[in-house]
Amino acid sequence: MSECFQDAYPDHLAVCYGCGRHNEHGVHVRSFWEGDEGVARVTPRDYERAFPGIVYGGLVASIIDCHCIGTAAAATARAEGRPLAGDPPLRFVTGTLEVKFLKPTPLGVELVCRARAEEVGPRKVVLAASLEADGVVTATGRVVAVRVPDAVADAARREA
Amino acid sequence: MSECFQDAYPDHLAVCYGCGRHNEHGVHVRSFWEGDEGVARVTPRDYERAFPGIVYGGLVASIIDCHCIGTAAAATARAEGRPLAGDPPLRFVTGTLEVKFLKPTPLGVELVCRARAEEVGPRKVVLAASLEADGVVTATGRVVAVRVPDAVADAARREA
Repeated sequence: MSECFQDAYPDHLAVCYGCGRHNEHGVHVRSFWEGDEGVARVTPRDYERAFPGIVYGGLVASIIDCHCIGTAAAATARAEGRPLAGDPPLRFVTGTLEVKFLKPTPLGVELVCRARAEEVGPRKVVLAASLEADGVVTATGRVVAVRVPDAVADAARREA
Repeated sequence: MSECFQDAYPDHLAVCYGCGRHNEHGVHVRSFWEGDEGVARVTPRDYERAFPGIVYGGLVASIIDCHCIGTAAAATARAEGRPLAGDPPLRFVTGTLEVKFLKPTPLGVELVCRARAEEVGPRKVVLAASLEADGVVTATGRVVAVRVPDAVADAARREA
C-alpha cells in the first residue's frame, strides 16, 4: 500500500478533527494513492447521523474536505517531484468547498471517498471528489485547496 | 427570544450530530429568528480544530448546513402561515452546500451564523449564510434545502 498522505503532516499540523492523527476525538481520514486517484475509506460512528440510519451532511462535507486537502498535498508533491513529507511541509487549507448530496448516505457501511486533482498550480489545487457507499455514489464534491505559505506554517509551529 | 427552530423537530428526527437535541455527542446548533435572519451561535469545542487555534473546515460547513436547514423550515412555516412544529413535520435535507472560506475561523470565541432565505418554494428553499467570529465574517455559504416528502418522514418515524 502507498504512503498515507496525512502521515506526512508534521506533528504540529496533525491535530485536525477531520484528519489529524493527534486529534483524540476526530474522524481520522486517511488517504492513499490508487493510481491517479486519492482514496480514503471511513466508517462513520453511530452518532454521526442526520436521521436514523443516515450519515449527517456535515460529515460528508468533512470527509470530502480533508481528503481533498490531503490529495492536494500529494498531487503537488508528485508534480514537483519532491517527497510528500519533509521541509518545508506541504500543507493546504480550503478555499472553497462544494458538496452535492445525490442521495442519503447510509450509516453502518464503509464509505469510499475518491478525489482527482484537476489543476495543480503553485498556489492552489482544484479537485473533484465523490463519496460512495456500497458502490453507489451518494455525494460529489469540488474543492479549491490553497497552499499554506511557509511563513504561516512556521507561525503555527511556534504556537504549537 | 423567539422559538428555537430545531426544538420544533419531532423527537424521532432530532438526532442529527449537527443540530439534534437527542444527539449526545453533537454540536447542537440552535437557530432563532432575528428579524428576517436566522441566527445561530456556537462556541466550538477545543478539539474541533484544523490547526492550533483554528476551527476545522468541516465544522464551519456543518454549522452553515444545519443552520440553513433549520432556517429553511422556519422560512417555509412563515411563508405558509403555519406553525413550525406540528404535523406533518416540516423537515428539509441538503441538496447542495457551498462554503467559501475567507479567512481562518478562530477557536475560543462564539461564532455567529446568519442565514437568509432567498427563495422559498414548495419543494426547495435557497439560502445565503455567513459565519462571523468577533464580528468578522470568516466564511460564507449557500445551501439548497430540499423538503422531505411526508412519506419519507413517516418511514423514518416507523424506523425510530
